[in-house]
Amino acid sequence: MPWATRDVRSRFVTSFRCLTFLTDYGLEDGFVASCHGVAARLAPHVRIIDVTHLVPPGDVRRGAAVLAQTVPYLPSAVHVAVVDPGVGTARRSIAVAAADAIFVGPDNGLLSWAVAAVGGASSAFQLTNSQLWLDHVSPTFHGRDIFMPVAAHLAAGSDLASVGTEIDLTDLVTLPSPTSRVHDGDAEGEVMSVDRFGNVQLSITSSDADQMGIGTGTTLVVRCGRRQLTVPYRETYAAVAPGELVAYTDGAGLISLAVNAGDAAQRLGLPPGAHVRLTVAP
Amino acid sequence: MPWATRDVRSRFVTSFRCLTFLTDYGLEDGFVASCHGVAARLAPHVRIIDVTHLVPPGDVRRGAAVLAQTVPYLPSAVHVAVVDPGVGTARRSIAVAAADAIFVGPDNGLLSWAVAAVGGASSAFQLTNSQLWLDHVSPTFHGRDIFMPVAAHLAAGSDLASVGTEIDLTDLVTLPSPTSRVHDGDAEGEVMSVDRFGNVQLSITSSDADQMGIGTGTTLVVRCGRRQLTVPYRETYAAVAPGELVAYTDGAGLISLAVNAGDAAQRLGLPPGAHVRLTVAP
Amino acid sequence: MPWATRDVRSRFVTSFRCLTFLTDYGLEDGFVASCHGVAARLAPHVRIIDVTHLVPPGDVRRGAAVLAQTVPYLPSAVHVAVVDPGVGTARRSIAVAAADAIFVGPDNGLLSWAVAAVGGASSAFQLTNSQLWLDHVSPTFHGRDIFMPVAAHLAAGSDLASVGTEIDLTDLVTLPSPTSRVHDGDAEGEVMSVDRFGNVQLSITSSDADQMGIGTGTTLVVRCGRRQLTVPYRETYAAVAPGELVAYTDGAGLISLAVNAGDAAQRLGLPPGAHVRLTVAP
Repeated sequence: MPWATRDVRSRFVTSFRCLTFLTDYGLEDGFVASCHGVAARLAPHVRIIDVTHLVPPGDVRRGAAVLAQTVPYLPSAVHVAVVDPGVGTARRSIAVAAADAIFVGPDNGLLSWAVAAVGGASSAFQLTNSQLWLDHVSPTFHGRDIFMPVAAHLAAGSDLASVGTEIDLTDLVTLPSPTSRVHDGDAEGEVMSVDRFGNVQLSITSSDADQMGIGTGTTLVVRCGRRQLTVPYRETYAAVAPGELVAYTDGAGLISLAVNAGDAAQRLGLPPGAHVRLTVAP
Repeated sequence: MPWATRDVRSRFVTSFRCLTFLTDYGLEDGFVASCHGVAARLAPHVRIIDVTHLVPPGDVRRGAAVLAQTVPYLPSAVHVAVVDPGVGTARRSIAVAAADAIFVGPDNGLLSWAVAAVGGASSAFQLTNSQLWLDHVSPTFHGRDIFMPVAAHLAAGSDLASVGTEIDLTDLVTLPSPTSRVHDGDAEGEVMSVDRFGNVQLSITSSDADQMGIGTGTTLVVRCGRRQLTVPYRETYAAVAPGELVAYTDGAGLISLAVNAGDAAQRLGLPPGAHVRLTVAP
Repeated sequence: MPWATRDVRSRFVTSFRCLTFLTDYGLEDGFVASCHGVAARLAPHVRIIDVTHLVPPGDVRRGAAVLAQTVPYLPSAVHVAVVDPGVGTARRSIAVAAADAIFVGPDNGLLSWAVAAVGGASSAFQLTNSQLWLDHVSPTFHGRDIFMPVAAHLAAGSDLASVGTEIDLTDLVTLPSPTSRVHDGDAEGEVMSVDRFGNVQLSITSSDADQMGIGTGTTLVVRCGRRQLTVPYRETYAAVAPGELVAYTDGAGLISLAVNAGDAAQRLGLPPGAHVRLTVAP
């Protein structure tokens, strides 16, 4: 058994490194597997954690939000993210170091919220060293041919500076922050995301909520479109009766709306991006 | 504890341990990845096998059925399962030892069929030791903040008793068994599940069927709702012509109805839970 | 670089072994996990890369196309593929060696395009040695009970000849190649696949296209059904305005049609198998 000698193997324990992978590639084709395969060839002992591959096609903001909300729970890793409607155009390919992470992907803002979530970029490089890429690069599949091979090299121990030319941090494309404003006991925000359960996540943080005096037992007035609803704020969905609306702080620390055992997004007609206002009911 | 002494661990091969993971979290968000990340941080060398994350939201019975039917084929592992509509309420969080497995999840019956499938519980603990949890626990995301960290500690070798307070096995919540009755050559059951192919799995076991004289070459009378159908029992779908109905014993040992190259659930209008009666045709 | 010195690495490369896994099982049941579990029990240190499990039920051609287009990017592995509408009938179960790969699955043509993609079969065996199977074989779940256990034994080092009886390569079932013909500056093909983005992949290769004089900057006349469209050939989607049609060479080296930030398959009404003709516009 040539690969499991005790001496060699024991040298791996301290060098454990992960890749994580987020895309809008979907799961019905072989796109994700091709990228996994490329990584397994170049860095066979590096583990890959799939963040999601079901970002709506081309939805950079949604990809950015999922990555930013997940990355605090991921191990030290090279995070590859590809939602890349401009693939093959002049948009840059980048690797950004931040805290104990390296983010690899297109320079279209996709990485920017996650980079901020871990404390901000310490250095950034444009992927210009084609020695690290696959020999043939498809203009429409940089995930497989550029991003993943570069990330695999990094996860296998290559120096970050080997990927290309250092670029100024102020030159990185950043996504505009979601709308979020609190003043005079009134919070304005937008729908950040709707999850599988139909829970509606708002761009209003629990610390915004604290500041407004929102807490367990208070009641909120929620305004969206022409509707105005009175919604109890509780710790969890099941604190209200099945079918009832409830506001709570979700696992990402954001104020959210749910229907216990139901679908709040459907009930309220609230898609991502919709504008919402909250006040504490008198 | 054969697998997790620290000395053994360093040699890897003999200390191999798995986590498995079943939820209703879906795959479009970062929920599953957050849990994988927590496990990878706490137990970097433990492999995770995803059972499914597409249990219909809040469908505890469906989650229980999938876990119970899959667990006989999984390796010795800590099995984490989270379909948890009561998250954040008074429902208990538990870890249950059964055979060479430990099951971790909410005490809402989700684990009960799988525990029975491997021979019944030998001990059970309520998760009360918050030292093993993440520092901040979201009231709506115990999968990430309680269940997975506890499971990762267990997979990495912590003693089961460290998770909290031992509880009486008779106190565990169990799901009612699916309807299933055989007498006088007549079997009554319910639809356990409908799979991706539209195959309809009944809560009637192959040993029930044997007892009734059902075997390859016999013909069944199937009654569901107001319909009565005559269906051949064969070994496999393709034993009948494309488009024809067939009864057979599925991979979980349960009598099932299929349409060769078609969708039996759609054809018969049989959702999970629907009542079905079988007799052998004269 | 603690783990990737050439000396250490070279001892792994020759012994590293993967399983890959493609099915039409879907992700909502425990079918895929059962197979992962079987592999993890028999070959605990072998990594599994999932190619996809969302092949449309029973669609052997689609499964064959995904596998063939993905396999060049996968590491040396035992590739298990199961799209098997004839499971449990007289169709053979096979293991086929080709280049540094072994393919395991039903002998219904599913493997044939992938085998060709890596250079053709060098030997083939019928799976007749039931010693390598699970003790109980379900007539409808050979993926779990035959294919995966055999593949796990192979990945763990068993000799290929141990799986059963050698068979003549000319006896292997092969799928008919997709329609593809080029003559006099006119290419005929069919739609190979439609991906998640609605991009329409044709069975016309980039070398066919070269031969016809298609290149960046040329304009194509696309005929499908009764429609005739004029479409620019560019390197990538984003080379045309959002909402515009574009032809390009995709990541598998096949001429494809896309709508920038849109869905070409929907726009053109082109499902897999549809006939398409291309000429260079004068």
